[in-house]
Amino acid sequence: MSDKRVYLYDCTLRDGAQTQGVDFNVADKVAIAWELDRLGIDYVEGGMPGANPTDDAFFGEPPALDHARLTAFGMTRRAGRSADNDPGLNATVSTAAKSVCMVGKTWDFHVDVALDITPSENIDIIGDSIAFAAKRVDEVLFDAEHFFDGYIADPAFAMDCLKAAMDAGARWVVLCDTNGGMLPHDVERIVGEVVEKIPGDHVAIHCHDDTGNAVASSLLAVRAGARQIQGSLNGLGERCGNADLVSIIPSLVLKTDFETAVTPERLLHLSHVSRLLDERLNRAPRRNAPYVGESAFAHKGGLHASAVEKDPRCYEHIDPELVGNHRHIVVSDQSGRSNILARFREIGLDIDPADPKVTRLVEAVKEREFDGYAYDGAEASFELLAHGILGDVPKYFGLTSFRVIDERRWNARGELITLSEATVKLAAGGHDLMSVAEGNGPVNALDAALRKVLTPIYPPLEDLRLVDYKVRILTPGEGTRAVTRVMIESADSHGEHWATVGVSTNVIDASYNALRDSIVYKLYRDGAATAAS
Amino acid sequence: MSDKRVYLYDCTLRDGAQTQGVDFNVADKVAIAWELDRLGIDYVEGGMPGANPTDDAFFGEPPALDHARLTAFGMTRRAGRSADNDPGLNATVSTAAKSVCMVGKTWDFHVDVALDITPSENIDIIGDSIAFAAKRVDEVLFDAEHFFDGYIADPAFAMDCLKAAMDAGARWVVLCDTNGGMLPHDVERIVGEVVEKIPGDHVAIHCHDDTGNAVASSLLAVRAGARQIQGSLNGLGERCGNADLVSIIPSLVLKTDFETAVTPERLLHLSHVSRLLDERLNRAPRRNAPYVGESAFAHKGGLHASAVEKDPRCYEHIDPELVGNHRHIVVSDQSGRSNILARFREIGLDIDPADPKVTRLVEAVKEREFDGYAYDGAEASFELLAHGILGDVPKYFGLTSFRVIDERRWNARGELITLSEATVKLAAGGHDLMSVAEGNGPVNALDAALRKVLTPIYPPLEDLRLVDYKVRILTPGEGTRAVTRVMIESADSHGEHWATVGVSTNVIDASYNALRDSIVYKLYRDGAATAAS
Repeated sequence: MSDKRVYLYDCTLRDGAQTQGVDFNVADKVAIAWELDRLGIDYVEGGMPGANPTDDAFFGEPPALDHARLTAFGMTRRAGRSADNDPGLNATVSTAAKSVCMVGKTWDFHVDVALDITPSENIDIIGDSIAFAAKRVDEVLFDAEHFFDGYIADPAFAMDCLKAAMDAGARWVVLCDTNGGMLPHDVERIVGEVVEKIPGDHVAIHCHDDTGNAVASSLLAVRAGARQIQGSLNGLGERCGNADLVSIIPSLVLKTDFETAVTPERLLHLSHVSRLLDERLNRAPRRNAPYVGESAFAHKGGLHASAVEKDPRCYEHIDPELVGNHRHIVVSDQSGRSNILARFREIGLDIDPADPKVTRLVEAVKEREFDGYAYDGAEASFELLAHGILGDVPKYFGLTSFRVIDERRWNARGELITLSEATVKLAAGGHDLMSVAEGNGPVNALDAALRKVLTPIYPPLEDLRLVDYKVRILTPGEGTRAVTRVMIESADSHGEHWATVGVSTNVIDASYNALRDSIVYKLYRDGAATAAS
Repeated sequence: MSDKRVYLYDCTLRDGAQTQGVDFNVADKVAIAWELDRLGIDYVEGGMPGANPTDDAFFGEPPALDHARLTAFGMTRRAGRSADNDPGLNATVSTAAKSVCMVGKTWDFHVDVALDITPSENIDIIGDSIAFAAKRVDEVLFDAEHFFDGYIADPAFAMDCLKAAMDAGARWVVLCDTNGGMLPHDVERIVGEVVEKIPGDHVAIHCHDDTGNAVASSLLAVRAGARQIQGSLNGLGERCGNADLVSIIPSLVLKTDFETAVTPERLLHLSHVSRLLDERLNRAPRRNAPYVGESAFAHKGGLHASAVEKDPRCYEHIDPELVGNHRHIVVSDQSGRSNILARFREIGLDIDPADPKVTRLVEAVKEREFDGYAYDGAEASFELLAHGILGDVPKYFGLTSFRVIDERRWNARGELITLSEATVKLAAGGHDLMSVAEGNGPVNALDAALRKVLTPIYPPLEDLRLVDYKVRILTPGEGTRAVTRVMIESADSHGEHWATVGVSTNVIDASYNALRDSIVYKLYRDGAATAAS
């Protein structure tokens, strides 16, 4: 193995879950783990077994990963308890994850104030816990909490903690700047001093962004000899977040001679992975994010734009395509065409760019995107749009009208009654059809009414399940009058998953558009024939 | 003057104005300039005279600054034109600003491709322009565009450009990483080499955040000898933004022995200045911003929260009050009783933990969280819940029922009609009241109907604005039947912002709950009396 190999360890599913406002479910965790694996991340920290039902469910049925090692996070044993009798420690080592990362103290002040034990007891805790875990799993990482503060306060004690972990069988010691207070030059210096005693290919860096330096400190730590970087997608994490792997990876791959498992081909997915995470979290991607932001390669008219037209190197530090992003020149409307063509190829529509249909397709996509549609993460709607323009999507049904009534009132016994009722009128197979259904909320009622009338005609719809439903407001500042984008994820019993999108000023109308696409996509994919008239 | 004195140069009003979506007016520029001055910034770059009417108006009637030097930005003369006959150059030096910063090329590739002139012509342009300006204003800064790329490509030429500027009378040379592509160690090394030839107290650093390293590179440049940092508030700027002075300043002041004009007293304004900028731009402040973000000192995990209660240094790298921010204990499903108690204290409810009411409060919070409420980010609903249980929230009104009807149909002319109509029945001041309103979507209709009936009774509601509306589905896997959580952010003209939350299986019902809390909170905060019967 080259001494330039740097391992990437992702904490999105654990540290990232600590972010204010972030609440992953199991499906989110599985989807993110798969994307991390596909990107070439070496370690995926899945969560903390025993800490909450979501993490237990995730580790109970862990996603199959191709390259990445699923890692469980946990704590070293409690003071005054043996490793055998510590339920938390036992939970940590008892999942399908063959790699575990265990946190312990290395700052004398913390040992004294937070744990209220002696330094030597702390060292015993580390040694016992690591040894216990090393017997039960393939690989143990020791997460040295507050290492930098600890090293500054008492370097001998902090190093003794690391040595205890190494002696007990840890594969890696993770130098954590837990409160994020270190400046980059201190991180570089201290990592350099640590790797004089512990080989760098056993030393990991774990930074938080409380001074806005987590990315730089991680890169400098690697220059100082560390060979593993821990961080999260989009810098997710509590307070100011963890080191942002989405910024670190392209700098490492494109601008240094360090080696990672992120090949140039895998790097092409970077922008997609970053946006997928935000979609899952139902939040707007940061436009100005390094490398992957929508504005990262945007050139506002004038001098810059024309210089970029002459030679992109004039104002671009890398080719945006290398990270799956693209140049955005505000003055010219020509940008994006090649990107849209690339997306057509991705869904199997290999059209000659000279074909006049291409212009119509590109125009249609641009028009929809202008209205607020986003096809990043709604591939099924994108496919339907493209195939619709090419004329090969049958007209399974046509909506005539719908009406949804929502009520909230109290009945004679003082009980709260909420009612949602949807009426749908549509035409299929030459017939006018109408149905009414109640539901648990207006979208559920609408979905029920649509299925009630369509399933007898199109039996494949029996096997259509709505898996997720997300709403995003696009023009905040206008409160409840804003434009609404609804994303629906559907699945069937064959394990197929597809996502559709609908946009409207009205949340119900936007939901209908996404529901309709979900139904039509299922029928189209199954090759259903249109209903006989 | 100490050799540790570092000057701070703010580009918010010029580089920041290039940000996608940013559009300052003159009043904005004046207000921001005053705040920068009050903060202790040394140079305030006001804009580019002659470039647009806003900048001309600003320089035409410049704000009176106490400490900061107002600086005009401009370009060196055009090729083939004398300095005297260059209208841009003349505009730059002809304002009330006695300091000017002038940009010129230092990268041979750019001189060749973008300007299409010889290297020696470029050096003449720099010398002529600086000399011309130095005769007319007190202080000239030479902004060396693409200096780092230029230095790597041809160090001798890049240095000759700097020397031409210094020889012609420049007070500072500004080393710009214009495309933001440099990694921190290269910035540190190159700045170190430059200050061997040009004294560091004449060398400024100007970084962009395209690799996420602008803050670190600025700090490292100062360590390497530069004595001026250029950046912007909140990292505003085109593409990924400029170096964020709001992150740089506290690190310099609190964590290094460099000296700036930002005294500890002035530093107390930092969070305010950062938020004021976002207010002016009408955008939500970044919660996770280093030092000043709402989450920067937020503690979510139960373990962290109880350790912080013992001693804040356990998980805080600085005292948040030093930068005008404050500690924030987040209430979440991970929080224990100590978290919730700390949160009560934060909203001014200083209850004895032994008080039997505390148990009821804690139980109520946990029950609501079990139902899907999240008070993390919905502080107003949390306050209402707590004060409601203590019995000090007046009953302003009671909902009897509501009904919302949504329709989508095509009229006789084939036009799509979507309609949302809400009917509300409620009791206030001993009267039964009813109203009906249409809206742009069901929640907007409901909001309109509520205001229509309540505003005449409670005039403060005239001054209530919905700023943001977010929907999150909590138990995906059940598709559209999932539980829905709605978060609403409201504001009034006093600059108050508050967030409320509502949960229900029905999105309309959840929205009603959040809307109701927003209205009640506004009335409660304003100390409104309940309607007379």
